[in-house]
Amino acid sequence: MNFNPSRDFARILDTQDELASLRSQFVITNPDLIYLDGNSLGRLPKAAAERVSAAVAEWGSDLIRGWNKGWWDAPARLGEKIARLVGADPGQVIVSDSTSINLYKLVMAALALHPQRRRIVTDTLNFPSDLYVLQGCIHLLGGRYEIVRIESQDGDVSPDLDALASAVDENTSLVTLSHVTFKSGYLYEMAAVTEMAHRKGALVLWDLCHSVGVLPIQLDRCNTDFAIGCTYKYLNGGPGSPAFLYVRRNLQEKALSPIWGWWGQKSPFAFGLDYTPAPGVNRFLAGSQPILSMLALEASLDPLLEAGTERIRRKSVLLTEYLIYLSDTLLAPLGFTLGSPRTPDRRGSHVSLRHPEGYSINRALIEEMNVIPDFREPDNLRLGLAPLYITFGEVWEGVDRIRRVVEDRRFEIYPKERLTVT
Amino acid sequence: MNFNPSRDFARILDTQDELASLRSQFVITNPDLIYLDGNSLGRLPKAAAERVSAAVAEWGSDLIRGWNKGWWDAPARLGEKIARLVGADPGQVIVSDSTSINLYKLVMAALALHPQRRRIVTDTLNFPSDLYVLQGCIHLLGGRYEIVRIESQDGDVSPDLDALASAVDENTSLVTLSHVTFKSGYLYEMAAVTEMAHRKGALVLWDLCHSVGVLPIQLDRCNTDFAIGCTYKYLNGGPGSPAFLYVRRNLQEKALSPIWGWWGQKSPFAFGLDYTPAPGVNRFLAGSQPILSMLALEASLDPLLEAGTERIRRKSVLLTEYLIYLSDTLLAPLGFTLGSPRTPDRRGSHVSLRHPEGYSINRALIEEMNVIPDFREPDNLRLGLAPLYITFGEVWEGVDRIRRVVEDRRFEIYPKERLTVT
Repeated sequence: MNFNPSRDFARILDTQDELASLRSQFVITNPDLIYLDGNSLGRLPKAAAERVSAAVAEWGSDLIRGWNKGWWDAPARLGEKIARLVGADPGQVIVSDSTSINLYKLVMAALALHPQRRRIVTDTLNFPSDLYVLQGCIHLLGGRYEIVRIESQDGDVSPDLDALASAVDENTSLVTLSHVTFKSGYLYEMAAVTEMAHRKGALVLWDLCHSVGVLPIQLDRCNTDFAIGCTYKYLNGGPGSPAFLYVRRNLQEKALSPIWGWWGQKSPFAFGLDYTPAPGVNRFLAGSQPILSMLALEASLDPLLEAGTERIRRKSVLLTEYLIYLSDTLLAPLGFTLGSPRTPDRRGSHVSLRHPEGYSINRALIEEMNVIPDFREPDNLRLGLAPLYITFGEVWEGVDRIRRVVEDRRFEIYPKERLTVT
Repeated sequence: MNFNPSRDFARILDTQDELASLRSQFVITNPDLIYLDGNSLGRLPKAAAERVSAAVAEWGSDLIRGWNKGWWDAPARLGEKIARLVGADPGQVIVSDSTSINLYKLVMAALALHPQRRRIVTDTLNFPSDLYVLQGCIHLLGGRYEIVRIESQDGDVSPDLDALASAVDENTSLVTLSHVTFKSGYLYEMAAVTEMAHRKGALVLWDLCHSVGVLPIQLDRCNTDFAIGCTYKYLNGGPGSPAFLYVRRNLQEKALSPIWGWWGQKSPFAFGLDYTPAPGVNRFLAGSQPILSMLALEASLDPLLEAGTERIRRKSVLLTEYLIYLSDTLLAPLGFTLGSPRTPDRRGSHVSLRHPEGYSINRALIEEMNVIPDFREPDNLRLGLAPLYITFGEVWEGVDRIRRVVEDRRFEIYPKERLTVT
């Protein structure tokens, strides 16, 4: 498509948007706000607000009986909804706990499946918390393992795929990567990387935080072994909503969670004194799940399932292509460079624009321009484009406000870097 | 106090109830329902319902900015509120994750502090999920550890304290017990047991699930090392609301969570690639917390803090004493025996009544009598008395309905035991 930089052109794109009607399913309290952080916290679906009210009412009137009316089964039920977004047949996905905790469970399970292999391969583009979890696992296992962290080849935009392939060897237990990287939005080719690792006999664990809900994923078809993901980004589950995990069916009877709790026990209400893991993926549950947050998430998934990941991806590509076009045209003259892959095939749904004054520009946009981007060290203005509710007009307006804040030098009154408060 | 079995006497007790006014702070949709399961899921505080509505509205309008307006700090802020209920100075309690996961973190941390000691001492009265967690830890550590499980001396009512003291030796790393046991409601003497274990050089971890919010706890004064607890019982946090953990201040710099995540990282927003634990108890955080459930809990804690644990305990003891008196008088002739300690000093706020037909009686009470007790294998009708909202009149009425359901043999149409569905 040939874009053009006028505001009218954005209006034309909006009239052709096949997902335009979905925006009305979200609560939008301030239409002037350009929200470019739906990849960090998705907007509130109206259905989620209603479901939470209903859940609170159930707590008040059903009391303990609520557990038999849909609360206890929520991890598996929500898992099946997410399974439809990630290309998984039933019985392989559950919703519970946080992404970090699910990663910990699956890494420990994976390492135990290959006790003679002692290498974990990941990259520096991975979300730091994922790296921390790996470091914790290694520490716990007494230093018998090594983590190989592949460096990026082009200033934190894309991975070095050759170095990755070379690092995976007969001593590699696990390859774990972010499907879409948190900073540059690089999109790994899941099938190819998984196949490469499998050829060396390694297991593969994908972090889907920045890809689930915004592009088609085929976990089963790619023979992925394990996956995790959060639900508060493109799944719009609400702040800190519970995460999910996927364990491929033929690994489920061999793989064990390191955390043995009653929700993962075969017969939890027999209250036997010895643990027997539940059959299937439920063994990766541990303790009680936060039901109010769970049920909000459950309702939030419906607009996504209605849209379908193919249509979402089509709009997502168009949105990021359009944003990059506008940036090239209007922002590059002001010192911005692209911090994301240029080819849409290798890009998720957020775009990072790099600028030496990135931190203060980000602050000025929030404080003065009613734009909410995100900032990621050292110089990335990260712009997330959530296809269910963002319009092309908002993309145009967001870029125009970035242009104005830089041209008018309104960022100069803000600090140049984050003050360390923690 | 001398009780008497008439309904009028219950009314007198209610007029003398110094906490009576607190009941109006809870949502009670069906005043005829006798709810005796507040030790499993506490009733809905009106303030919690309001707080959840407000939290949903914050999500809708503040969007990502909500994290800076009280969401990110919620684990520590809620921890300080709970600290006031458990006798902990500031900086030692956080709210996060589930009880099982918190137990896992602290057990692994504790075992690492005493690498040369290889014994964990617990008892068969402990909540089974706690035992599962311990078994999982041992499995992970490769069988180098042993778990000693002290048997009860009197049919699962009270622990064998002599056997416990004998089992703790110079090879014991950790003693971990439920402060109030989930079935019989036995209340351990925290100070004495902790001191006994410390004399042998062992660390002590208390599970406060069935004691927090219903009796005074002095973690600091007892020199407790670690504690965990859930928040959906007497704390009324709502279904599956996040749990808490306590790490004694002088252990915090030595103890490490096995799960290294960004919420426990010293500078989470620097996104450095290497983990450095946060100072203090925050290092036991891992990933994002479910904010809607967190904020419901935060509001729920206020009525407890208003009442104070001393007054709550006074009413709790009176409630359980009265229930036992009524059971001795009206239910013992029908085959019920007491499954809880008779002395109030050694009893929490729930009372188990044993009956050979316990399971079907429990079912009949729920289905036909508008009474909600709980059932615990093999024959315990477990009656929880939550002092913030239960009345003495309800205790009388509950016992009277139990009497009628047994006298009229209305339980006979129900199965004699739980059908295994999981």
